[in-house]
Amino acid sequence: MSTDRPAPPANALYHYPLSPFSRKVRLTLAEKKIEVKLIEERYWEQDPDFIRRNPAGKVPILKLGSRVLADSVAICEYLEEAHPTPALMPNTPEGRYEVRRLIAWFDDKFYHEVTTKLVGERVFRKVMGTGYPDSGNVKSGSRAIKYHLDYMAQLLESRRWLAGNEMSLADFAAAAHLSCLDYISDVDWNRSDVVKDWYAKIKSRPAFRSLLADQVSGFPQPQHYADLDF
Amino acid sequence: MSTDRPAPPANALYHYPLSPFSRKVRLTLAEKKIEVKLIEERYWEQDPDFIRRNPAGKVPILKLGSRVLADSVAICEYLEEAHPTPALMPNTPEGRYEVRRLIAWFDDKFYHEVTTKLVGERVFRKVMGTGYPDSGNVKSGSRAIKYHLDYMAQLLESRRWLAGNEMSLADFAAAAHLSCLDYISDVDWNRSDVVKDWYAKIKSRPAFRSLLADQVSGFPQPQHYADLDF
Repeated sequence: MSTDRPAPPANALYHYPLSPFSRKVRLTLAEKKIEVKLIEERYWEQDPDFIRRNPAGKVPILKLGSRVLADSVAICEYLEEAHPTPALMPNTPEGRYEVRRLIAWFDDKFYHEVTTKLVGERVFRKVMGTGYPDSGNVKSGSRAIKYHLDYMAQLLESRRWLAGNEMSLADFAAAAHLSCLDYISDVDWNRSDVVKDWYAKIKSRPAFRSLLADQVSGFPQPQHYADLDF
Repeated sequence: MSTDRPAPPANALYHYPLSPFSRKVRLTLAEKKIEVKLIEERYWEQDPDFIRRNPAGKVPILKLGSRVLADSVAICEYLEEAHPTPALMPNTPEGRYEVRRLIAWFDDKFYHEVTTKLVGERVFRKVMGTGYPDSGNVKSGSRAIKYHLDYMAQLLESRRWLAGNEMSLADFAAAAHLSCLDYISDVDWNRSDVVKDWYAKIKSRPAFRSLLADQVSGFPQPQHYADLDF
Protein backbone atom coordinates (compact mmCIF):
# COMPACT_ATOMS: atom_id res chain seq x y z
CA MET A 1 0.00 0.00 0.00
CA SER A 2 3.03 2.32 0.04
CA THR A 3 3.29 5.19 -2.39
CA ASP A 4 6.16 7.31 -3.60
CA ARG A 5 4.49 10.61 -2.74
CA PRO A 6 6.67 13.13 -0.92
CA ALA A 7 5.50 14.30 2.53
CA PRO A 8 2.58 16.72 2.09
CA PRO A 9 3.16 20.44 2.69
CA ALA A 10 1.80 22.08 5.87
CA ASN A 11 -1.15 23.64 4.05
CA ALA A 12 -2.60 21.86 1.05
CA LEU A 13 -5.85 21.52 -0.82
CA TYR A 14 -6.48 18.17 -2.47
CA HIS A 15 -8.69 19.11 -5.38
CA TYR A 16 -9.66 18.40 -8.95
CA PRO A 17 -9.65 21.29 -11.46
CA LEU A 18 -13.23 20.88 -12.71
CA SER A 19 -14.72 19.97 -9.32
CA PRO A 20 -17.12 22.82 -8.44
CA PHE A 21 -16.82 21.96 -4.73
CA SER A 22 -13.03 22.29 -4.92
CA ARG A 23 -13.39 25.58 -6.79
CA LYS A 24 -15.71 27.03 -4.15
CA VAL A 25 -13.08 26.30 -1.48
CA ARG A 26 -10.24 27.64 -3.68
CA LEU A 27 -12.12 30.93 -4.12
CA THR A 28 -12.79 31.16 -0.38
CA LEU A 29 -9.15 30.44 0.52
CA ALA A 30 -7.85 32.96 -2.01
CA GLU A 31 -10.29 35.67 -0.95
CA LYS A 32 -9.17 35.20 2.67
CA LYS A 33 -5.51 35.13 1.55
CA ILE A 34 -4.82 31.69 3.04
CA GLU A 35 -2.03 30.14 1.00
CA VAL A 36 -2.21 26.43 0.28
CA LYS A 37 -0.46 24.15 -2.13
CA LEU A 38 -2.89 22.74 -4.68
CA ILE A 39 -2.56 18.97 -5.10
CA GLU A 40 -4.56 17.46 -7.94
CA GLU A 41 -6.31 14.32 -6.76
CA ARG A 42 -7.91 11.86 -9.16
CA TYR A 43 -10.21 10.91 -6.29
CA TRP A 44 -12.16 8.29 -8.25
CA GLU A 45 -9.01 6.16 -8.38
CA GLN A 46 -9.35 5.79 -4.60
CA ASP A 47 -5.65 6.06 -3.74
CA PRO A 48 -5.27 4.45 -0.27
CA ASP A 49 -3.37 7.46 1.13
CA PHE A 50 -6.19 9.73 0.03
CA ILE A 51 -8.94 7.50 1.44
CA ARG A 52 -7.09 7.37 4.77
CA ARG A 53 -7.21 11.16 4.90
CA ASN A 54 -10.86 11.26 3.87
CA PRO A 55 -13.14 8.27 4.39
CA ALA A 56 -15.81 10.05 2.30
CA GLY A 57 -13.42 9.63 -0.68
CA LYS A 58 -14.17 12.97 -2.32
CA VAL A 59 -12.47 16.26 -3.06
CA PRO A 60 -11.86 18.84 -1.73
CA ILE A 61 -9.85 17.96 1.36
CA LEU A 62 -8.11 20.82 3.12
CA LYS A 63 -5.00 20.21 5.17
CA LEU A 64 -4.15 23.11 7.51
CA GLY A 65 -1.16 22.13 9.62
CA SER A 66 -2.14 18.96 11.49
CA ARG A 67 -5.86 19.50 10.81
CA VAL A 68 -7.54 17.70 7.88
CA LEU A 69 -10.95 19.02 6.83
CA ALA A 70 -13.53 17.42 4.54
CA ASP A 71 -16.80 18.53 2.91
CA SER A 72 -16.86 21.84 1.07
CA VAL A 73 -19.74 23.33 3.07
CA ALA A 74 -18.17 22.45 6.44
CA ILE A 75 -14.79 23.73 5.18
CA CYS A 76 -16.16 27.09 4.01
CA GLU A 77 -18.12 27.63 7.24
CA TYR A 78 -14.96 26.77 9.20
CA LEU A 79 -12.84 29.20 7.18
CA GLU A 80 -15.46 31.91 7.68
CA GLU A 81 -15.45 31.37 11.46
CA ALA A 82 -11.71 30.88 11.94
CA HIS A 83 -10.64 33.58 9.43
CA PRO A 84 -13.48 36.11 9.55
CA THR A 85 -11.79 38.79 7.39
CA PRO A 86 -12.91 39.57 4.74
CA ALA A 87 -16.43 38.48 5.71
CA LEU A 88 -18.15 36.21 3.18
CA MET A 89 -21.40 35.94 5.16
CA PRO A 90 -23.74 38.70 6.38
CA ASN A 91 -24.25 39.36 10.11
CA THR A 92 -27.93 38.61 10.51
CA PRO A 93 -29.45 35.11 10.84
CA GLU A 94 -31.81 36.03 7.97
CA GLY A 95 -28.96 37.14 5.71
CA ARG A 96 -26.92 34.05 6.55
CA TYR A 97 -29.95 31.85 5.90
CA GLU A 98 -30.23 33.25 2.38
CA VAL A 99 -26.53 32.57 1.71
CA ARG A 100 -26.89 28.98 2.93
CA ARG A 101 -30.10 28.41 0.99
CA LEU A 102 -28.38 29.48 -2.21
CA ILE A 103 -25.26 27.41 -1.53
CA ALA A 104 -27.57 24.38 -1.21
CA TRP A 105 -29.42 25.48 -4.36
CA PHE A 106 -26.21 25.39 -6.40
CA ASP A 107 -24.41 22.50 -4.70
CA ASP A 108 -27.48 20.26 -4.72
CA LYS A 109 -30.12 21.29 -7.28
CA PHE A 110 -27.91 23.00 -9.87
CA TYR A 111 -25.21 20.32 -9.44
CA HIS A 112 -27.61 17.45 -10.10
CA GLU A 113 -29.65 19.18 -12.81
CA VAL A 114 -26.84 20.89 -14.71
CA THR A 115 -23.23 20.25 -13.65
CA THR A 116 -23.38 16.43 -13.56
CA LYS A 117 -25.43 16.41 -16.78
CA LEU A 118 -22.93 18.52 -18.73
CA VAL A 119 -19.48 18.50 -17.07
CA GLY A 120 -20.16 15.00 -15.73
CA GLU A 121 -21.10 13.61 -19.14
CA ARG A 122 -18.71 15.56 -21.35
CA VAL A 123 -15.58 15.57 -19.15
CA PHE A 124 -15.73 13.12 -16.24
CA ARG A 125 -16.86 10.17 -18.32
CA LYS A 126 -13.77 10.60 -20.46
CA VAL A 127 -11.23 11.23 -17.69
CA MET A 128 -12.70 8.45 -15.52
CA GLY A 129 -13.02 6.10 -18.50
CA THR A 130 -16.72 5.34 -18.00
CA GLY A 131 -17.86 5.57 -21.61
CA TYR A 132 -19.42 8.10 -23.95
CA PRO A 133 -21.66 11.01 -22.92
CA ASP A 134 -25.33 10.10 -22.53
CA SER A 135 -27.08 12.41 -24.99
CA GLY A 136 -30.32 12.39 -22.99
CA ASN A 137 -28.46 13.72 -19.96
CA VAL A 138 -26.66 16.36 -22.04
CA LYS A 139 -29.99 17.54 -23.49
CA SER A 140 -31.56 17.67 -20.06
CA GLY A 141 -28.61 19.69 -18.67
CA SER A 142 -28.70 22.12 -21.58
CA ARG A 143 -32.39 22.71 -20.94
CA ALA A 144 -32.00 23.07 -17.16
CA ILE A 145 -29.18 25.61 -17.29
CA LYS A 146 -31.53 28.10 -19.02
CA TYR A 147 -33.99 27.93 -16.15
CA HIS A 148 -31.16 28.37 -13.64
CA LEU A 149 -29.66 31.37 -15.47
CA ASP A 150 -33.14 32.93 -15.47
CA TYR A 151 -33.47 32.29 -11.74
CA MET A 152 -30.11 33.98 -11.15
CA ALA A 153 -31.21 36.93 -13.31
CA GLN A 154 -34.37 37.24 -11.23
CA LEU A 155 -32.30 37.42 -8.02
CA LEU A 156 -29.81 39.86 -9.54
CA GLU A 157 -32.53 42.25 -10.71
CA SER A 158 -33.00 43.35 -7.10
CA ARG A 159 -29.61 42.60 -5.51
CA ARG A 160 -25.98 43.47 -6.29
CA TRP A 161 -24.87 39.93 -5.48
CA LEU A 162 -26.81 36.66 -5.43
CA ALA A 163 -27.71 36.57 -1.73
CA GLY A 164 -27.87 40.32 -1.09
CA ASN A 165 -25.90 43.49 -1.61
CA GLU A 166 -22.58 42.05 -0.44
CA MET A 167 -20.54 39.33 -2.10
CA SER A 168 -20.83 36.04 -0.19
CA LEU A 169 -20.12 32.32 -0.26
CA ALA A 170 -23.31 31.98 -2.33
CA ASP A 171 -21.62 33.84 -5.20
CA PHE A 172 -18.60 31.54 -4.91
CA ALA A 173 -20.82 28.45 -4.99
CA ALA A 174 -22.58 29.67 -8.14
CA ALA A 175 -19.38 30.87 -9.82
CA ALA A 176 -17.68 27.56 -9.04
CA HIS A 177 -20.32 25.63 -10.99
CA LEU A 178 -20.63 28.15 -13.82
CA SER A 179 -16.86 28.37 -14.31
CA CYS A 180 -16.66 24.58 -14.76
CA LEU A 181 -19.45 24.81 -17.35
CA ASP A 182 -17.76 27.77 -19.00
CA TYR A 183 -14.58 25.71 -19.40
CA ILE A 184 -16.55 23.47 -21.77
CA SER A 185 -18.37 26.45 -23.36
CA ASP A 186 -21.75 25.40 -21.98
CA VAL A 187 -22.87 28.81 -20.68
CA ASP A 188 -24.81 31.16 -22.96
CA TRP A 189 -23.66 34.50 -21.51
CA ASN A 190 -25.94 36.36 -23.89
CA ARG A 191 -29.03 35.05 -22.14
CA SER A 192 -28.96 37.68 -19.39
CA ASP A 193 -27.03 40.94 -19.04
CA VAL A 194 -27.24 40.98 -15.25
CA VAL A 195 -25.85 37.46 -14.99
CA LYS A 196 -23.05 38.28 -17.41
CA ASP A 197 -22.19 41.45 -15.46
CA TRP A 198 -22.20 39.48 -12.20
CA TYR A 199 -19.84 36.86 -13.67
CA ALA A 200 -17.53 39.55 -15.12
CA LYS A 201 -17.34 41.13 -11.67
CA ILE A 202 -16.44 37.92 -9.87
CA LYS A 203 -14.17 36.66 -12.63
CA SER A 204 -12.01 39.79 -12.41
CA ARG A 205 -11.22 39.28 -8.72
CA PRO A 206 -7.64 38.23 -7.90
CA ALA A 207 -9.11 35.17 -6.10
CA PHE A 208 -10.36 33.89 -9.48
CA ARG A 209 -6.95 33.85 -11.17
CA SER A 210 -6.00 30.34 -10.13
CA LEU A 211 -9.24 28.96 -11.63
CA LEU A 212 -8.59 30.75 -14.92
CA ALA A 213 -5.17 29.09 -15.13
CA ASP A 214 -6.58 25.54 -14.86
CA GLN A 215 -5.87 23.10 -17.66
CA VAL A 216 -7.54 19.72 -18.01
CA SER A 217 -5.67 17.19 -20.09
CA GLY A 218 -7.66 16.29 -23.22
CA PHE A 219 -9.84 19.39 -22.86
CA PRO A 220 -8.00 22.48 -24.10
CA GLN A 221 -9.13 25.71 -22.49
CA PRO A 222 -11.42 27.65 -24.85
CA GLN A 223 -10.23 31.15 -25.69
CA HIS A 224 -13.04 33.06 -23.93
CA TYR A 225 -12.62 31.11 -20.67
CA ALA A 226 -9.81 33.19 -19.15
CA ASP A 227 -10.72 36.39 -21.01
CA LEU A 228 -12.08 39.07 -18.67
CA ASP A 229 -13.92 40.63 -21.64
CA PHE A 230 -15.72 37.44 -22.65
CA MET B 1 -54.42 26.27 -10.57
CA SER B 2 -56.70 27.00 -7.57
CA THR B 3 -56.83 24.63 -4.63
CA ASP B 4 -59.27 24.14 -1.78
CA ARG B 5 -56.62 24.36 0.91
CA PRO B 6 -57.46 26.52 3.90
CA ALA B 7 -55.14 29.43 4.71
CA PRO B 8 -51.93 28.05 6.25
CA PRO B 9 -51.30 28.54 9.98
CA ALA B 10 -48.73 31.13 11.17
CA ASN B 11 -46.09 28.49 11.88
CA ALA B 12 -46.05 25.33 9.80
CA LEU B 13 -43.65 22.68 8.61
CA TYR B 14 -44.42 21.14 5.24
CA HIS B 15 -42.92 17.68 5.58
CA TYR B 16 -43.21 14.03 4.68
CA PRO B 17 -43.12 11.44 7.50
CA LEU B 18 -40.27 9.30 6.14
CA SER B 19 -38.20 12.22 4.79
CA PRO B 20 -35.00 12.24 6.87
CA PHE B 21 -34.47 15.94 6.08
CA SER B 22 -37.95 16.75 7.44
CA ARG B 23 -37.24 14.65 10.53
CA LYS B 24 -33.98 16.48 11.26
CA VAL B 25 -35.88 19.79 11.24
CA ARG B 26 -38.75 18.35 13.33
CA LEU B 27 -36.25 17.22 15.99
CA THR B 28 -34.54 20.63 15.97
CA LEU B 29 -37.85 22.53 16.27
CA ALA B 30 -39.07 20.27 19.09
CA GLU B 31 -35.79 20.46 21.01
CA LYS B 32 -35.97 24.27 20.80
CA LYS B 33 -39.67 24.18 21.76
CA ILE B 34 -40.81 26.01 18.63
CA GLU B 35 -44.37 24.92 17.92
CA VAL B 36 -45.40 24.39 14.32
CA LYS B 37 -48.30 22.70 12.63
CA LEU B 38 -47.11 19.68 10.65
CA ILE B 39 -48.55 19.59 7.13
CA GLU B 40 -47.88 16.44 5.15
CA GLU B 41 -46.78 17.30 1.63
CA ARG B 42 -46.63 14.72 -1.13
CA TYR B 43 -43.97 16.93 -2.71
CA TRP B 44 -43.40 14.68 -5.74
CA GLU B 45 -46.93 15.52 -6.94
CA GLN B 46 -45.68 19.11 -7.43
CA ASP B 47 -48.77 20.92 -6.18
CA PRO B 48 -48.58 24.45 -7.67
CA ASP B 49 -49.16 26.12 -4.29
CA PHE B 50 -46.26 24.17 -2.85
CA ILE B 51 -43.93 24.94 -5.76
CA ARG B 52 -44.75 28.62 -5.45
CA ARG B 53 -43.60 28.50 -1.81
CA ASN B 54 -40.49 26.52 -2.71
CA PRO B 55 -39.04 26.58 -6.22
CA ALA B 56 -36.68 23.74 -5.19
CA GLY B 57 -39.81 21.53 -4.94
CA LYS B 58 -38.69 19.56 -1.89
CA VAL B 59 -39.57 19.08 1.76
CA PRO B 60 -39.07 20.35 4.40
CA ILE B 61 -40.32 23.91 4.05
CA LEU B 62 -40.67 25.89 7.25
CA LYS B 63 -43.14 28.74 7.51
CA LEU B 64 -42.51 31.04 10.48
CA GLY B 65 -44.95 33.93 10.32
CA SER B 66 -44.38 35.64 6.99
CA ARG B 67 -40.99 33.97 6.50
CA VAL B 68 -40.72 30.83 4.33
CA LEU B 69 -37.51 28.81 4.70
CA ALA B 70 -36.20 26.01 2.48
CA ASP B 71 -33.34 23.51 2.67
CA SER B 72 -32.88 21.51 5.87
CA VAL B 73 -29.26 22.57 6.48
CA ALA B 74 -30.04 26.28 6.01
CA ILE B 75 -33.16 25.90 8.19
CA CYS B 76 -31.31 24.19 11.06
CA GLU B 77 -28.48 26.75 11.00
CA TYR B 78 -31.07 29.53 11.01
CA LEU B 79 -32.93 28.00 13.97
CA GLU B 80 -29.65 27.60 15.85
CA GLU B 81 -28.77 31.27 15.27
CA ALA B 82 -32.22 32.78 15.81
CA HIS B 83 -33.17 30.48 18.74
CA PRO B 84 -29.84 29.66 20.39
CA THR B 85 -31.27 27.88 23.47
CA PRO B 86 -30.77 24.99 23.94
CA ALA B 87 -27.54 25.03 21.92
CA LEU B 88 -27.26 22.29 19.30
CA MET B 89 -23.80 23.34 18.10
CA PRO B 90 -20.56 23.72 20.09
CA ASN B 91 -18.89 27.13 20.53
CA THR B 92 -15.57 26.57 18.79
CA PRO B 93 -15.02 26.69 15.02
CA GLU B 94 -13.38 23.25 15.29
CA GLY B 95 -16.34 21.76 17.17
CA ARG B 96 -18.81 23.32 14.76
CA TYR B 97 -16.79 22.02 11.81
CA GLU B 98 -17.12 18.47 13.13
CA VAL B 99 -20.90 18.86 13.50
CA ARG B 100 -21.20 20.16 9.94
CA ARG B 101 -18.91 17.47 8.53
CA LEU B 102 -21.10 14.78 10.08
CA ILE B 103 -24.35 16.41 8.94
CA ALA B 104 -22.95 16.28 5.39
CA TRP B 105 -21.80 12.68 5.98
CA PHE B 106 -25.35 11.59 6.82
CA ASP B 107 -27.32 13.89 4.51
CA ASP B 108 -25.10 13.20 1.51
CA LYS B 109 -23.08 9.97 1.81
CA PHE B 110 -25.38 7.96 4.11
CA TYR B 111 -28.46 9.26 2.27
CA HIS B 112 -27.20 8.15 -1.15
CA GLU B 113 -25.59 4.89 -0.02
CA VAL B 114 -28.25 3.72 2.44
CA THR B 115 -31.47 5.75 2.79
CA THR B 116 -32.34 6.03 -0.90
CA LYS B 117 -31.33 2.39 -1.45
CA LEU B 118 -33.61 1.04 1.29
CA VAL B 119 -36.34 3.57 2.20
CA GLY B 120 -36.28 4.88 -1.37
CA GLU B 121 -36.71 1.44 -2.92
CA ARG B 122 -39.02 -0.15 -0.34
CA VAL B 123 -41.31 2.80 0.49
CA PHE B 124 -41.01 5.71 -1.94
CA ARG B 125 -41.33 3.59 -5.07
CA LYS B 126 -44.67 2.36 -3.78
CA VAL B 127 -46.07 5.67 -2.53
CA MET B 128 -44.86 7.52 -5.64
CA GLY B 129 -46.03 4.73 -7.94
CA THR B 130 -42.66 4.25 -9.67
CA GLY B 131 -42.56 0.46 -9.71
CA TYR B 132 -41.08 -2.37 -7.67
CA PRO B 133 -37.95 -2.17 -5.51
CA ASP B 134 -34.70 -2.72 -7.40
CA SER B 135 -33.12 -5.69 -5.62
CA GLY B 136 -29.59 -4.63 -6.56
CA ASN B 137 -30.12 -1.31 -4.81
CA VAL B 138 -31.64 -2.98 -1.76
CA LYS B 139 -28.65 -5.34 -1.51
CA SER B 140 -26.23 -2.47 -1.88
CA GLY B 141 -28.02 -0.46 0.84
CA SER B 142 -28.09 -3.46 3.21
CA ARG B 143 -24.36 -3.86 2.75
CA ALA B 144 -23.57 -0.15 3.13
CA ILE B 145 -25.54 0.32 6.38
CA LYS B 146 -23.18 -2.11 8.15
CA TYR B 147 -20.17 0.00 7.25
CA HIS B 148 -21.96 3.14 8.42
CA LEU B 149 -23.04 1.59 11.75
CA ASP B 150 -19.42 0.56 12.29
CA TYR B 151 -18.25 4.10 11.51
CA MET B 152 -20.75 5.47 14.07
CA ALA B 153 -19.52 2.90 16.63
CA GLN B 154 -15.96 4.04 16.02
CA LEU B 155 -16.94 7.67 16.71
CA LEU B 156 -18.99 6.74 19.77
CA GLU B 157 -16.17 4.72 21.33
CA SER B 158 -14.45 7.99 22.23
CA ARG B 159 -17.35 10.48 22.40
CA ARG B 160 -20.67 10.65 24.24
CA TRP B 161 -22.44 11.92 21.12
CA LEU B 162 -21.49 11.66 17.46
CA ALA B 163 -19.67 14.98 17.06
CA GLY B 164 -18.35 15.34 20.63
CA ASN B 165 -19.47 15.16 24.23
CA GLU B 166 -22.59 17.26 23.72
CA MET B 167 -25.66 16.39 21.71
CA SER B 168 -25.75 18.34 18.43
CA LEU B 169 -27.43 18.70 15.08
CA ALA B 170 -25.14 15.87 13.88
CA ASP B 171 -26.99 13.46 16.17
CA PHE B 172 -30.31 14.69 14.80
CA ALA B 173 -29.13 14.20 11.21
CA ALA B 174 -28.03 10.64 11.95
CA ALA B 175 -31.13 9.79 14.01
CA ALA B 176 -33.37 11.20 11.29
CA HIS B 177 -31.98 8.75 8.73
CA LEU B 178 -31.80 5.78 11.11
CA SER B 179 -35.35 6.31 12.36
CA CYS B 180 -36.67 6.16 8.77
CA LEU B 181 -34.75 2.92 8.27
CA ASP B 182 -35.98 1.59 11.62
CA TYR B 183 -39.57 2.20 10.50
CA ILE B 184 -39.01 -0.47 7.84
CA SER B 185 -36.96 -2.66 10.23
CA ASP B 186 -33.73 -2.18 8.27
CA VAL B 187 -31.42 -1.44 11.22
CA ASP B 188 -29.63 -4.29 12.98
CA TRP B 189 -29.39 -2.80 16.48
CA ASN B 190 -27.44 -5.81 17.68
CA ARG B 191 -24.48 -4.87 15.54
CA SER B 192 -23.07 -2.38 18.04
CA ASP B 193 -23.89 -1.73 21.70
CA VAL B 194 -22.64 1.85 21.63
CA VAL B 195 -24.80 2.69 18.63
CA LYS B 196 -27.85 1.06 20.22
CA ASP B 197 -27.23 2.98 23.48
CA TRP B 198 -26.86 6.22 21.54
CA TYR B 199 -30.14 5.62 19.69
CA ALA B 200 -31.96 4.66 22.93
CA LYS B 201 -30.77 7.94 24.47
CA ILE B 202 -31.95 10.11 21.59
CA LYS B 203 -35.17 8.12 21.05
CA SER B 204 -36.25 8.73 24.66
CA ARG B 205 -36.10 12.51 24.32
CA PRO B 206 -39.47 14.33 24.28
CA ALA B 207 -38.44 15.85 20.91
CA PHE B 208 -38.55 12.37 19.39
CA ARG B 209 -42.19 11.63 20.31
CA SER B 210 -43.71 13.12 17.19
CA LEU B 211 -41.50 10.90 14.99
CA LEU B 212 -42.53 7.80 16.93
CA ALA B 213 -46.20 8.62 16.28
CA ASP B 214 -45.75 8.72 12.48
CA GLN B 215 -47.84 6.37 10.37
CA VAL B 216 -47.30 5.80 6.66
CA SER B 217 -50.28 4.46 4.77
CA GLY B 218 -49.52 0.99 3.40
CA PHE B 219 -46.59 0.55 5.77
CA PRO B 220 -47.80 -0.35 9.28
CA GLN B 221 -45.43 0.69 12.06
CA PRO B 222 -43.48 -2.32 13.32
CA GLN B 223 -43.87 -3.01 17.04
CA HIS B 224 -40.28 -2.18 18.07
CA TYR B 225 -40.27 1.18 16.25
CA ALA B 226 -41.90 3.27 18.99
CA ASP B 227 -40.71 1.03 21.85
CA LEU B 228 -38.11 2.75 24.03
CA ASP B 229 -36.80 -0.70 25.07
CA PHE B 230 -36.28 -1.96 21.53
